[in-house]
Amino acid sequence: MAAFSFVCVECGARFDEREVRYVCPACAAQQVTGTATRGVLRVELDEPPRRWPEAPLHSPEGLARFLPVHAAFVPPLTVGGTPLLPVPRLRRELGLRRLWLKDDGRNPSGSTKDRASLLVVAKALEYGYDTVATASTGNAASALAAVAAAAALRAVVFVPAAAPQAKLVQIAAYGAMLVPVTGSYDDAFELSLAACERFGWYNRNTAFNPFTIEGKKTAAHEIAADLAPEAPDVVLVPTGDGVVIAGVAKGFADLVRGGLIERVPRLIAVQPAGSAAIARALRDGAAEVTPVPGATSVADSLVVNAPRNAILALREVRASGGSGVIVSDEAIVAAIARLAAATGVFAEPAAAAVLAGLEAALEEGLVGRDERVVLLVTGTGLKDVAAAARAVSMPEPVPADLDAVAERLAGGVG
Amino acid sequence: MAAFSFVCVECGARFDEREVRYVCPACAAQQVTGTATRGVLRVELDEPPRRWPEAPLHSPEGLARFLPVHAAFVPPLTVGGTPLLPVPRLRRELGLRRLWLKDDGRNPSGSTKDRASLLVVAKALEYGYDTVATASTGNAASALAAVAAAAALRAVVFVPAAAPQAKLVQIAAYGAMLVPVTGSYDDAFELSLAACERFGWYNRNTAFNPFTIEGKKTAAHEIAADLAPEAPDVVLVPTGDGVVIAGVAKGFADLVRGGLIERVPRLIAVQPAGSAAIARALRDGAAEVTPVPGATSVADSLVVNAPRNAILALREVRASGGSGVIVSDEAIVAAIARLAAATGVFAEPAAAAVLAGLEAALEEGLVGRDERVVLLVTGTGLKDVAAAARAVSMPEPVPADLDAVAERLAGGVG
Repeated sequence: MAAFSFVCVECGARFDEREVRYVCPACAAQQVTGTATRGVLRVELDEPPRRWPEAPLHSPEGLARFLPVHAAFVPPLTVGGTPLLPVPRLRRELGLRRLWLKDDGRNPSGSTKDRASLLVVAKALEYGYDTVATASTGNAASALAAVAAAAALRAVVFVPAAAPQAKLVQIAAYGAMLVPVTGSYDDAFELSLAACERFGWYNRNTAFNPFTIEGKKTAAHEIAADLAPEAPDVVLVPTGDGVVIAGVAKGFADLVRGGLIERVPRLIAVQPAGSAAIARALRDGAAEVTPVPGATSVADSLVVNAPRNAILALREVRASGGSGVIVSDEAIVAAIARLAAATGVFAEPAAAAVLAGLEAALEEGLVGRDERVVLLVTGTGLKDVAAAARAVSMPEPVPADLDAVAERLAGGVG
Repeated sequence: MAAFSFVCVECGARFDEREVRYVCPACAAQQVTGTATRGVLRVELDEPPRRWPEAPLHSPEGLARFLPVHAAFVPPLTVGGTPLLPVPRLRRELGLRRLWLKDDGRNPSGSTKDRASLLVVAKALEYGYDTVATASTGNAASALAAVAAAAALRAVVFVPAAAPQAKLVQIAAYGAMLVPVTGSYDDAFELSLAACERFGWYNRNTAFNPFTIEGKKTAAHEIAADLAPEAPDVVLVPTGDGVVIAGVAKGFADLVRGGLIERVPRLIAVQPAGSAAIARALRDGAAEVTPVPGATSVADSLVVNAPRNAILALREVRASGGSGVIVSDEAIVAAIARLAAATGVFAEPAAAAVLAGLEAALEEGLVGRDERVVLLVTGTGLKDVAAAARAVSMPEPVPADLDAVAERLAGGVG
């Protein structure tokens, strides 16, 4: 296990890791902004890793070298190790010679959230909990449910009742206790915090539990290892609460500290127009984000009124020299089909948004055509087929007759 | 590229590989049984691989060592390299100490069919085609559409109009020309054969194109490599047309020829009661399968009236000392939730059927509790959420109120 401390983002206080901590004992009052509770603790490794492990990065041994976790507690479900694809056809279409796509939809529950859940469940096992709970727009809940199932822990998940059906069914299939909440993700978040406190559950809430950011570091480690000895210049990341992008930033920062790469790539936060608190603050140069009550988008995974991890996300993106881009729902829907047809990777709206974001960033001059660019595709399109259906036209059936096929071909349908 | 010949399963004739072949010139008349056209050619490597490659098995270099393909033609989409999971919780539940699950739902389009499509598209590129076509119950079509998209080839796919919506949307998103056919998979199959002939397309039809079986070998190679120096005693495989199980058999057989394992494990074909032609022939000791007109099952991927690869499947399963098991749709639906909750792997009905099959095989004494058993999980549950919804009960939403949560907990819902 990589030894570590907790450090408070607000006041800089440092605490050792012998007990479970979500909140800073030195400045606890600062954790609530309006109605939104947010996390302020950050994990800091005592010693950054200075060489790549012999074992694969996503194996228990590899993880224990780069994360604050014992190999013995890593749940028996392979997370990460997803491919970094060279996407030649998309390169040609966009005129980018050095573009890669990290397909994190290949994780066990179909999203990058599995990375955070793997670490959190490992810590729950280490700390002796039998139940882990979280609120989620859907993917973090599926991820927790999947990893907890493999580890034989109980999962309790709070999701907006309006989450896509596929995500709700998937969560229930994993045997988690599913609590659909009448209200927004933000409502579900506050409710889950209170429930953890009342019932003594381990709390996996994103940004609140510092290990959620820490677990997502591994996407950055894998990108850097696969590109080594080169390193990416820019990484685009779909952004909601700001946890994935902060985790990716931290993953690269650890590698810089250890001398494995020279610098953190510029990080570009991609947000939908209807839920763009972080990207807007980045573009406006604002010190803090302004919450967006009634946030909405086809990219359900990115819809938050008050991003829980805004402080760190703003700080890390700015430190990287990066920025934010804002894309419309129309552009996101179109990007689902465009990405699938150009790469063979079928992504959910939140994940396909990264392609729309790249196009916007190219147009705005935020990304150069000679740069090494990586798109983080955060979840599979099978998570939200209804959204994908908006991106394609479904042809009428034909009778089993060759002339009917010839006629269809002549019509150019498809 | 591993050099090879085509060998006719019917008459034993052997042909070199310099041209595209689907049919045996020596005994072409035998290819039609009733209304079902089937393939009879088999790929035979001149020299079996005698050691594991340095590169990962699923890399272009690894594939070129074990398959009849040039590394340069392997499409730029990572297929295979899926995890072999030790599933400790399911081991405890079933009293099996040495059980593994091969999660092939992690392939790019979400099913094991990607393995066949990778090889077929590589051959289409090598032979200079610009269009590849297939009929499919859904997964082979998604697979072809995904791999063809990455390789910038056109895909034309014929599917029963009643295929699950997720599969149809996914195929359309990849940009394939989708031809939903009013009729069964068998109707779509015959139509696609005729269309390939008329329009000069490369034909990826399963069992008909010998490379479909050949491509599926890689699942066996990966299982053997991951378990080495041990080897599985039994592998259970969901079975429809009989192509996956024949491919798995051939993969193990190649390793036996090359001395990398001692023997082909016993193969057990798992079929749903409503579409069990191959399993029934295996159980009855019949020389040929009897087609099942009007075949039907919740496991849509396994529904065929006349299995296209019955001859080889029967021969290979029998040669391995294996057998067939037949499971009900109720057992399949229950297995979706059971598998997900015990392993963290959410499978589509056809894939979850393999757990129902294992339980049947244990009961019938076909599998011993001390044996090394591998379950091939062929597709992700996100492919068919409607079926999974039958396996779980969806709780009613609660208001965002802690007492409501306490009440829900007391009720034990979930």
